[in-house]
Amino acid sequence: MATYAKGVFLLSIGDELLDGRTQNTNASWIGEQLRLAGIPVAEVRCVSDRLDDIVRALEEGRNYPIVVSTGGLGPTNDDRTLEGAALAFGRPLKATPESLEHVRSRYEARKLELTEIRLRLANLPEGARVLQNPTGTAPGVELTEGSTTYFFLPGPPNECRPIFTADILPMAKVKVAEKRLVRRETWRTFGKGEGEIYARVEKVVAHFEKHYPETFVFGVHIAFPGIDLTLEVWDVTGHPMPPPAEVEAACKEIGEGLGPLCFTRER
Amino acid sequence: MATYAKGVFLLSIGDELLDGRTQNTNASWIGEQLRLAGIPVAEVRCVSDRLDDIVRALEEGRNYPIVVSTGGLGPTNDDRTLEGAALAFGRPLKATPESLEHVRSRYEARKLELTEIRLRLANLPEGARVLQNPTGTAPGVELTEGSTTYFFLPGPPNECRPIFTADILPMAKVKVAEKRLVRRETWRTFGKGEGEIYARVEKVVAHFEKHYPETFVFGVHIAFPGIDLTLEVWDVTGHPMPPPAEVEAACKEIGEGLGPLCFTRER
Repeated sequence: MATYAKGVFLLSIGDELLDGRTQNTNASWIGEQLRLAGIPVAEVRCVSDRLDDIVRALEEGRNYPIVVSTGGLGPTNDDRTLEGAALAFGRPLKATPESLEHVRSRYEARKLELTEIRLRLANLPEGARVLQNPTGTAPGVELTEGSTTYFFLPGPPNECRPIFTADILPMAKVKVAEKRLVRRETWRTFGKGEGEIYARVEKVVAHFEKHYPETFVFGVHIAFPGIDLTLEVWDVTGHPMPPPAEVEAACKEIGEGLGPLCFTRER
Repeated sequence: MATYAKGVFLLSIGDELLDGRTQNTNASWIGEQLRLAGIPVAEVRCVSDRLDDIVRALEEGRNYPIVVSTGGLGPTNDDRTLEGAALAFGRPLKATPESLEHVRSRYEARKLELTEIRLRLANLPEGARVLQNPTGTAPGVELTEGSTTYFFLPGPPNECRPIFTADILPMAKVKVAEKRLVRRETWRTFGKGEGEIYARVEKVVAHFEKHYPETFVFGVHIAFPGIDLTLEVWDVTGHPMPPPAEVEAACKEIGEGLGPLCFTRER
């Protein structure tokens, strides 16, 4: 039986992400924030505004500790994220005093009337919590289902980023603590292809991958016009990590193997 | 039981896509090519280089007519796409005369020695077909499993794009013909928020969504600093389409509802 990767599941919702009209900058921005905090991303998935696709993705999200979705929270016909959550988890949608107050105050501040369409923004799946959205009208939403915490953020980057920073990142640091990055080294090379570069470091890499399969990750990443090599050591609950002195020796060996092909090294 | 969207499943493989180091331009470029050809994308999924994640994604790909994966075909330790296919479909990896010839000729042209690491590129899942890769060394791979055609392309854009254009797009036009775009209209607006814009067109949209749920799609897309509305009519086998005259009348009604908020209309 295939196991699930440890980490955060990012779900991006919207037709425009599938057909190349919109670059998925929400996922890459959130991914980068998590990387800088040493938290792994397990998967990025983009689905359409179709209800069945949203439901299926949210259901598979139960295999991860944290799901962060963006998009589909607006007032229009193709905003179906919370309807999907209601279906996936059997929680009817309804407004709460807190969500009504959020929506009311946001439209009041903009001196706009609270129409029926706008009031839809206050309908949350039962048991959900409002996350304050300081830059937009739709509230962010947090919902716990089993051992998974779901976050539903608006799609516009200027709305989802502040909520992510304020409400998600701090708890992700605690909740995904079973796997944390403790060391990353990058060698940037130029002048040879992937196969030749890799041959120069293969022995030492194979040794670590054999003995520390869960905590040692070595990646080869084509970064035109060169090749980047990355070594990572992760602290994963219950798995042995390579001792720091051994990692140090391996880094030295990799550096010598690459020789002048490596033009810069980043830590 | 949730149904699966009709269309192409795009699978992007590589750690660097999850943590924001690399924008997933392969998926957006392929998505755009498919959109311009009127072919829907059902889902975009990015997974790490972890074997279990690759296997699970390929297994779920069986619910789609075409799966296009990019990445993970190189010679290094983190290139596991074909190993994943071998596991998912129970087809051992081995070199064929065709794949050996592809790899041999590519390295010969570059005057590079055919090392053991490089020869790994010729190992394909049993029954797979080589797709010529004119700009790189790793062959593209085509594999049919049940009613699904899987395409495995190298990750570098200059390698995957020519293979996509030559070998995938023409067959996708035939194979995904059960759902084809026949009309798309876009209204670009400026000056009002999503809720207000949508209220102006809601009645006519609701009418079509009720009567043609499978073939009529209306989308609202925040495209800073404005809002884009898109109407699409799809020809889906077995489902009635709105008659052209009715669509024409609806477009007129939408245009009038938006009034001067619409600054340009695209077809």
